[in-house]
Amino acid sequence: MKTTALFVLFMVFSISLFAENGHDLWLRSKSTGKINVICKKTSPTLTIAIQELQKGWQGKDNATITLTLKSDKALKKDGFKFNKDEIQAGTESGILYGVYELLRRQQTGEPVEEKIYNPSYEIRTLNHWDNPDGSIERGYAGKSIFWRNGDNSMTVTDKDKDLWQEYARANASVGLNGAVLNNVNASPLMLSKEYLERVKAIAEVLRPYGIKTFLSVKFSSPSQIGKLKTSDPLDPEVIKWWNDKVKEIYSIIPDFGGFLVKASSEGQPGPQDYERSHADGANMMADAFKPFGGIVMWRAFVYSPNDKDRARQAYTEFMPLDGKFRDNVIIQVKNGPVDFQPREPFSPLFGAMKKTSLMPEFQITQEYLGQAIHMVFLGPMWEECLKSDTYQEGPGSTVGRSTDGSIYPQKHTAIAGVSNIGLDTNWCGHQMAQANWYAFGRLAWNNTLTSEKIADEWIKLTFGPVKPGQTGSLGFSNDWTEHFLVPVKKMILESREAAVNYMMPLGFHHIFSANNHYGPGPWYAPKGVRADWTPPYYHKADTLGVGFDRTHAGTDAVSQYHEPLASQFNDLKTCPEIYLLWFHHLPWDYKVSSGRTLWDEICYSYEKGLNQVRDFQKTWDKVEPYVDKERFENIRSKLKNQCRNAQVWKDACTLYFQQFSRRPIPYDIERPVYELNDLISSEVKRR
Amino acid sequence: MKTTALFVLFMVFSISLFAENGHDLWLRSKSTGKINVICKKTSPTLTIAIQELQKGWQGKDNATITLTLKSDKALKKDGFKFNKDEIQAGTESGILYGVYELLRRQQTGEPVEEKIYNPSYEIRTLNHWDNPDGSIERGYAGKSIFWRNGDNSMTVTDKDKDLWQEYARANASVGLNGAVLNNVNASPLMLSKEYLERVKAIAEVLRPYGIKTFLSVKFSSPSQIGKLKTSDPLDPEVIKWWNDKVKEIYSIIPDFGGFLVKASSEGQPGPQDYERSHADGANMMADAFKPFGGIVMWRAFVYSPNDKDRARQAYTEFMPLDGKFRDNVIIQVKNGPVDFQPREPFSPLFGAMKKTSLMPEFQITQEYLGQAIHMVFLGPMWEECLKSDTYQEGPGSTVGRSTDGSIYPQKHTAIAGVSNIGLDTNWCGHQMAQANWYAFGRLAWNNTLTSEKIADEWIKLTFGPVKPGQTGSLGFSNDWTEHFLVPVKKMILESREAAVNYMMPLGFHHIFSANNHYGPGPWYAPKGVRADWTPPYYHKADTLGVGFDRTHAGTDAVSQYHEPLASQFNDLKTCPEIYLLWFHHLPWDYKVSSGRTLWDEICYSYEKGLNQVRDFQKTWDKVEPYVDKERFENIRSKLKNQCRNAQVWKDACTLYFQQFSRRPIPYDIERPVYELNDLISSEVKRR
Repeated sequence: MKTTALFVLFMVFSISLFAENGHDLWLRSKSTGKINVICKKTSPTLTIAIQELQKGWQGKDNATITLTLKSDKALKKDGFKFNKDEIQAGTESGILYGVYELLRRQQTGEPVEEKIYNPSYEIRTLNHWDNPDGSIERGYAGKSIFWRNGDNSMTVTDKDKDLWQEYARANASVGLNGAVLNNVNASPLMLSKEYLERVKAIAEVLRPYGIKTFLSVKFSSPSQIGKLKTSDPLDPEVIKWWNDKVKEIYSIIPDFGGFLVKASSEGQPGPQDYERSHADGANMMADAFKPFGGIVMWRAFVYSPNDKDRARQAYTEFMPLDGKFRDNVIIQVKNGPVDFQPREPFSPLFGAMKKTSLMPEFQITQEYLGQAIHMVFLGPMWEECLKSDTYQEGPGSTVGRSTDGSIYPQKHTAIAGVSNIGLDTNWCGHQMAQANWYAFGRLAWNNTLTSEKIADEWIKLTFGPVKPGQTGSLGFSNDWTEHFLVPVKKMILESREAAVNYMMPLGFHHIFSANNHYGPGPWYAPKGVRADWTPPYYHKADTLGVGFDRTHAGTDAVSQYHEPLASQFNDLKTCPEIYLLWFHHLPWDYKVSSGRTLWDEICYSYEKGLNQVRDFQKTWDKVEPYVDKERFENIRSKLKNQCRNAQVWKDACTLYFQQFSRRPIPYDIERPVYELNDLISSEVKRR
Repeated sequence: MKTTALFVLFMVFSISLFAENGHDLWLRSKSTGKINVICKKTSPTLTIAIQELQKGWQGKDNATITLTLKSDKALKKDGFKFNKDEIQAGTESGILYGVYELLRRQQTGEPVEEKIYNPSYEIRTLNHWDNPDGSIERGYAGKSIFWRNGDNSMTVTDKDKDLWQEYARANASVGLNGAVLNNVNASPLMLSKEYLERVKAIAEVLRPYGIKTFLSVKFSSPSQIGKLKTSDPLDPEVIKWWNDKVKEIYSIIPDFGGFLVKASSEGQPGPQDYERSHADGANMMADAFKPFGGIVMWRAFVYSPNDKDRARQAYTEFMPLDGKFRDNVIIQVKNGPVDFQPREPFSPLFGAMKKTSLMPEFQITQEYLGQAIHMVFLGPMWEECLKSDTYQEGPGSTVGRSTDGSIYPQKHTAIAGVSNIGLDTNWCGHQMAQANWYAFGRLAWNNTLTSEKIADEWIKLTFGPVKPGQTGSLGFSNDWTEHFLVPVKKMILESREAAVNYMMPLGFHHIFSANNHYGPGPWYAPKGVRADWTPPYYHKADTLGVGFDRTHAGTDAVSQYHEPLASQFNDLKTCPEIYLLWFHHLPWDYKVSSGRTLWDEICYSYEKGLNQVRDFQKTWDKVEPYVDKERFENIRSKLKNQCRNAQVWKDACTLYFQQFSRRPIPYDIERPVYELNDLISSEVKRR
């Protein structure tokens, strides 16, 4: 009997750590009491709203809450208002967002303020780089949840629908309302009847959650699947083809969102193949969408092998087109001018185009940030971008404000994140990578949130103690807060800076191994490969110095920024050190602010990054008592791998650049443990 | 012209770092002046002595030195005496040793004291575990310098002779006078006419350097190559066969040294196959050698799979035979009771047998100490053993004194070291491993030397600044001493303790991966493998504790030691912590002297070991300006590898034992970066 009693006691104490595999994401809480919901209207969306309240209610037992569909001038489309015991919104989706906001506040112990909540962007979308065969470009969490290969690839199963519904719920819970279902390197197949039928099935599951479906399209579709002789956007037959195609789509998916287009970019066909401009291409499609309210998201990610500075090219190409785009075209601009690097200054296109809608594109999937192996919370990176001041209209013209309609009224505002999810049980491969999905949604809703706030919420929701029948703010004991929340939040918030330190400190960029974009490859420059696809193009190391001269004396990329930024970046005295080698080519013995030489500072940065990861390991191991075994071990194991890789980064980069600096690695730094040649040859093998 | 001048200046400054590949060992100095040598007799050995003086003289220019062959009661066989401007010795080899001693003192800046120098042991021998096919058991520096495979395997080339001469010179220069030319796991082939002819050729090269040749023999040779029906040592035909064989050998090699025998050990045939004792076997051979003055070195390395404690068995088996051996038999005993582990207490056979000659066997080749990859200076290990007090005749009865004839007059005294050399250009694979060859020779000559003294000499001779025409004590500037000698000596002297820390701290032993004896394998215990060939036999970890109980309450191996050692080892309060888990099985929470639990102390020891290697890397990188490029890079690269391996050791052992301790690795320790399962499976692949 005694043994049994002890066993029961043990079960009670460990119940909060019952097995979790991460599939529930940040939606783990169960209701702690009864809630009565008053809602006059019935609809699929409102039914979901009511069910969510009942499943997750953490407020007073037997309370009553009213869901009121009623417009208000102050309410934007998806906005809502908390009144006493009431959620008011102009749309059903607004009601749903209000419910999720209320529940999150209950679950994280945040007060429910009686005020209006409007989203920063009208369209808050995930871009899935999913291919028709189920593979995902830059996907690290399994195959596509939308597409698969094989004989039954088009069959919609209950399992498919369940998963799509979980996906839709997760997105809606953080305020996302759009999904581009396929890769920007698009297959024309996607516009075929067969695929559109599957899109319809997906859209039906997503619709009640307020989520619109979008598709990426290949610009050459008219000639590829339409059997036309050209895809010239000014050709009447081409125009008709697109008009017909869009009409067909709306006949199948009446609330279809629009197209995402990567054209004349990285070998993709586009209007330039016919000596037409991006505006010609985008407007042709936008006209087709006009009758249906759809939009065209046209990517500005363009660069040519012949230009001396890839960072300048999107601006150079798009600025002359300012004002030439239809009002249902939005130019989708990556956060930085090159390509989702661990750190870039913001793209100078933000704040530059004054008569064109621009939308930021962030990359949630960690293509360049350790993929699903490294723990890198991207909130701080996106916050850094959104809060960067473009000086478009003087101080305070942040990237966020210059894209969300605060500065110029735009017909449409939008934001996109390249998704990091796949069929992995925990959706993201790395448990911690769920935080990036969450953070993107939260920032898309409110682009002034701090990453600290987002991390706090996400940790509470994702790792907060959960017992059946009891959770919420009552669940966060002082002990849990002190020994789990605080250290884990600190670790997560530091993680992106750590990655910058051990990968590309001080403004280094794109020194990855070719193709896989995971490990270091600053040496990669085989003959025949175009220069801007090789790291030496970006680091420009030689025995005299290192870094890319983008000052007035160099490529003058600084001049693409408004003053005072242009001068600030141009001048060594004012250029932020985090962008040093992005904007300047400097001698190895240049003195940085720490008083060290540039070479020494580079070495210390790599050392620091490695040690930060080691500290993350310590932090995580210490919280073992507070986490269920499966998720604990997943993260522990990933951190080990990250640490091994941080060592490789540190050794590879210090040893590679040492060939040019010809200076010793400062002797108080832990010495490399790898041989440069071994790292190079093993990288070659991996490729 | 200016450029040329600068170039010349650069050449002058860098001349001391001209390329070296390590082949010259510690014999790099060139003479700095003329020396006149007076020697009345002529002989090959004396010619060498004179030539060495002329090649290496560092004393006053145009000085005169007299070599005097004259006995002196105080002089042992190889001993010599420094008188003013004179080296006196009773034998030619004594003169040669005097010359080498004089030159070493000149080169290292040590005064030449006018006194007598006698060797500690009469026979100072290297054991080569070289096989007839040229492979070397536990050899990590290339193939055998004596044997090779192929059609011309028996052809003696000039290249062979040159190399054998260099080998002989190196040995003589540190006082070694014997070489067992083949593996103790001996091929009977070695006694065939063909092989004896090659031994003869080798002996002819070695002889002028005072070095005798020995052979390992297979006990079953009479039946294997003699076509007898038995190899029973009491069988008259067998006795005759050995008598004839020994006679034949002496007809070919008149100064042949004798046999080394591994019998009834690890599957080797031996007297026990015929129910005869080790004494029966050894004496039978000894009798054959009697007329020729040869000796039999009979190994005590025996253990059976059935005994509960391998560490007890050599003692158990040999002690009853004390007094039963002929006076030209020497029992060759490994330093520790198990097998050349990173740390063992001394073998209890030392100081135990009072009527039998015993000789220590050290292992120079680093089978269990990182092979040719880890920098481990073994001087401290051997010093630890030689200075261990056996209490054979009360305090002060060190292992050294109990084997060198100081306590009991023995007919013969000897010491053996298992060689670490091969065909590698630098002889030992690792430049630093040359120090172990050197140290063994020096300790064989003088078993009271400190390893600090030996390291000092070796570093000066091996890395001291050398310029053509100038070297010697004048060459050691304060700068060199402070920035090279002092830190490198400190590093070398610490290296063995570091290896113990990251491999087997606190008395752990034999937790290597099976067969290769390089990496960790504490888990290795497949079914069907005899227990004493698996690490769990030695560490005995379970959830309650860890360690091998050899106290009175355990296997009572402690009782094989004299008092007060037996009591000291038996009692936890007095047992040295370095032998803790060798003698005791202790709970994981046992408090060690640091105040930590045993588990924590184990973790901290592994951490310390890894950090020591990291510090070695720092030390070595700092001395780069003082070392030629080739040797510098050889050692730098080896240290990196050692560091990677120390990490593997640390992670493997802490994670493996953690399964039993069920305690966290202390959180201020750097976390493991590997997965235990990955280490196990990669170890399995390696095997």
